[in-house]
Amino acid sequence: MKPASRVQTQFLSAQDVAALVTQLGLADALGGVADYITADFLRWQDFDKSARVANHSTDGVIELMPISDATTYAFKYVNGHPKNTHIGLSTVMAFGVLADVATGVPVFLSELTLTTALRTAAMSAVAARALARPNSRCMALIGNGAQSEFQALAFHHLLGIEEIRLYDVDRVATTKLMRNLQHTALRLIPCANIAEAVRGSDIVTTVTADKTNATILSPGLIEPGMHINGVGGDCPGKTELHPDVLRGASVFVEYEPQTRVEGDLQHLPADFAVTELWQVLSGKAAGRSSDSEVTLFDSVGFALEDYSALRFMRDSAQALGLGQRLSLIPELANPKDLFSLVRPGIKPLALAA
Amino acid sequence: MKPASRVQTQFLSAQDVAALVTQLGLADALGGVADYITADFLRWQDFDKSARVANHSTDGVIELMPISDATTYAFKYVNGHPKNTHIGLSTVMAFGVLADVATGVPVFLSELTLTTALRTAAMSAVAARALARPNSRCMALIGNGAQSEFQALAFHHLLGIEEIRLYDVDRVATTKLMRNLQHTALRLIPCANIAEAVRGSDIVTTVTADKTNATILSPGLIEPGMHINGVGGDCPGKTELHPDVLRGASVFVEYEPQTRVEGDLQHLPADFAVTELWQVLSGKAAGRSSDSEVTLFDSVGFALEDYSALRFMRDSAQALGLGQRLSLIPELANPKDLFSLVRPGIKPLALAA
Repeated sequence: MKPASRVQTQFLSAQDVAALVTQLGLADALGGVADYITADFLRWQDFDKSARVANHSTDGVIELMPISDATTYAFKYVNGHPKNTHIGLSTVMAFGVLADVATGVPVFLSELTLTTALRTAAMSAVAARALARPNSRCMALIGNGAQSEFQALAFHHLLGIEEIRLYDVDRVATTKLMRNLQHTALRLIPCANIAEAVRGSDIVTTVTADKTNATILSPGLIEPGMHINGVGGDCPGKTELHPDVLRGASVFVEYEPQTRVEGDLQHLPADFAVTELWQVLSGKAAGRSSDSEVTLFDSVGFALEDYSALRFMRDSAQALGLGQRLSLIPELANPKDLFSLVRPGIKPLALAA
Repeated sequence: MKPASRVQTQFLSAQDVAALVTQLGLADALGGVADYITADFLRWQDFDKSARVANHSTDGVIELMPISDATTYAFKYVNGHPKNTHIGLSTVMAFGVLADVATGVPVFLSELTLTTALRTAAMSAVAARALARPNSRCMALIGNGAQSEFQALAFHHLLGIEEIRLYDVDRVATTKLMRNLQHTALRLIPCANIAEAVRGSDIVTTVTADKTNATILSPGLIEPGMHINGVGGDCPGKTELHPDVLRGASVFVEYEPQTRVEGDLQHLPADFAVTELWQVLSGKAAGRSSDSEVTLFDSVGFALEDYSALRFMRDSAQALGLGQRLSLIPELANPKDLFSLVRPGIKPLALAA
C-alpha cells in the first residue's frame, strides 16, 4: 500500500477483515479485541460518552454510536432488522470510522458486521472473566444464530469453557453451529429445550434475535453461582430475561444510561441497583462476592467497544499490510480553494494560509 | 459498473463528485440540488428529525446528522476545525450515507466535502428565492473562503444576482474568489471593509469561518428591504450577527430546535419568534410581507439538506455511470452463518432461513 496522504482514509472491506481474522486465527483475534476493550474500559473517564442515536421503523432500527477521547473519535453505523434473514440478509450489518479529534480527518473506515460479532463476544468474555466463577467449564448457549460461534469460541479461548450446551428454536441453526465448530476442542451438546441446556451450566449466554419481549430465562431455571451473559436483549421492546432473573442477581452493565433504556433492565424500576463493569475491572467496585451468588451481565453493546475493535482492526491491518486507500476527503493544494476541484482548467493558487 | 449485489455499497469519491459537477456544470448541479431540497422540504412532515450529535474538542467539533423517512435513511459525518487551514487542511470535511430503511443496507456512500458547499449554497438560494425581494441583483459576500464561490454562483444562477461585493479579512481569499469566478458573467467588486460591501446591496451573505462570537453585521449596516443570508453562525459559540440585527428582522430557520442552539439565534431569548422555512415554501406561513421588511435566514445546515444532496448525487452518478462498488457489508450465502466468513475451509451450508 502506498503511503497515505494526510486526508486519505484507510479502508478495510468485509473480505479484508475476514482475511485478517483468518491470518491471526480466531483465538488471537478474540483475545486481541478483548485486550483492547479491557485497556479502554480501564480509562473510562477519558471518554466523551453518549447513548446511541436510533431511528426506529416498523421492521427495525438504524443506529449511530459515537464516542471520543482527547485524540480519537469513533462511530459505528449499525442496523437491527430481525426479519432480514427471511429475505437472505443479515439481521445486523455495520460499519464504522475512526477520526482524528485534532483535525476531524476520518482516518479509518472498516466493515463492522463481522467485527461486531467479534467485539460482542470479546466483551462478553471480558465481563465473564471478571464475574463468572473462575472454575467455569460448561456454558449454555441459547440462540445459535450469526453471533453464536463467536460467543462459543470467546468463552473457549478466553475463559477455558470446554462444554457448550446448545439450544435454538431453529434446529437448523444448532446444526450449523455444530458443523462450524466441529474441528475445535469444544464438546458441543444439542439440547431439546432451554431448561435442559441451562441445567448444571456454570455460565448461561442468551443471544436470541427476535425483536420482542421474550422470556428466554425465567427464575426457576437459575442455579446458585451461575453467571448469566444476556446479549440479545439490547433494544427497547427486545428483551430475553424475566424481571425476577435480574432481581435475583447482581447486575452489571456497560453504560448505565443506555442499558436502562435498551437492556433487559428496561423492565425494572429506575432505582434498581446496577454496577458499571469498568468499576469492577478497575477495582473500584466488587464483582462476584461468593461462589453461590448469581451474576448477570446485561449487555447491550456500547460505543466504546466499537472504538476498541476499530483500533484493533486498524493496528492489525497495518501490521499485516491489509486494506486500501479511499479518497473520501478531497486533496486540496489550498484548503480555502475548494472551488479548484470543479474548475480544473484553472490551476489553483498555491497560497500560504 | 457491474450490477450491485444486494449488500454492495455504491461509492462516490471526492474525485467522482468533482467529475460529476464538472460534467453537469455548476449551474445545473446547484439547480438540481436546490430542486431536491425544495421537494424534500415540501414533505417536511414525512421525516424523523433530530438535532445533530456533536462531540466538541478544544479546536473543533465532529458531528453526526441522521434523518429518515419511511423508505430512506441518511446521515452525514462532518467536522468543523477553523484552525485546520493553518496546517493545509480544510475547515469542514464530510462524507455521508444513504441506507434502505426496510433492511438497513447502506446503499450509497459519498464524499460530502464538496457536496456540502453545493448544498449549503443551494439551500441559501432556495431560502432567498422565497424571502429576498424578487428584483434583487446585488449581493454582499462577507467571507471569501472555501464556500464563497458556491454561494456566489448559486445566487447568480438561481436568483439572477449580477453584482457581488466582496470582503474578507484575508485579502488573499478575495483574490482567489475573483480569479476563480473571472470567467463568469458576475461583476465582482472587492471592498475595503464590511460597510462598503453591504451598502446598497439587496442581499447580504455572511459565510465566515472563525469559531468565535463575532459581529460581522451590526444594526447600523442594515438597510430596509435587505435579505440577510447568515451562513457562518452555525455552532454554539460561533456567531456572526449582532442580536439587534435579528431583532430588527423577520427571522427564518431550517429546524427550530437545532437553530436555537447553533444559530445566531443562540443569543436571543427562547421565545423570540421565528418561522421554519418549510412553512413558507409550502404556503403555510408568510415570507416577506413588504419591500421594506428585512428578512433573515439564520442558516445552520440541517440533516434534511444532506439527505436531499445525497439523493441528487446518487441519482446523477447513476445517470452518468460514475462511482464504484464497495464491500462494506459481507456477502453471505446464509445470513445466519456469519461464521462462514472466517472458516473458508468449510463450505457454508445453503439453508433456507
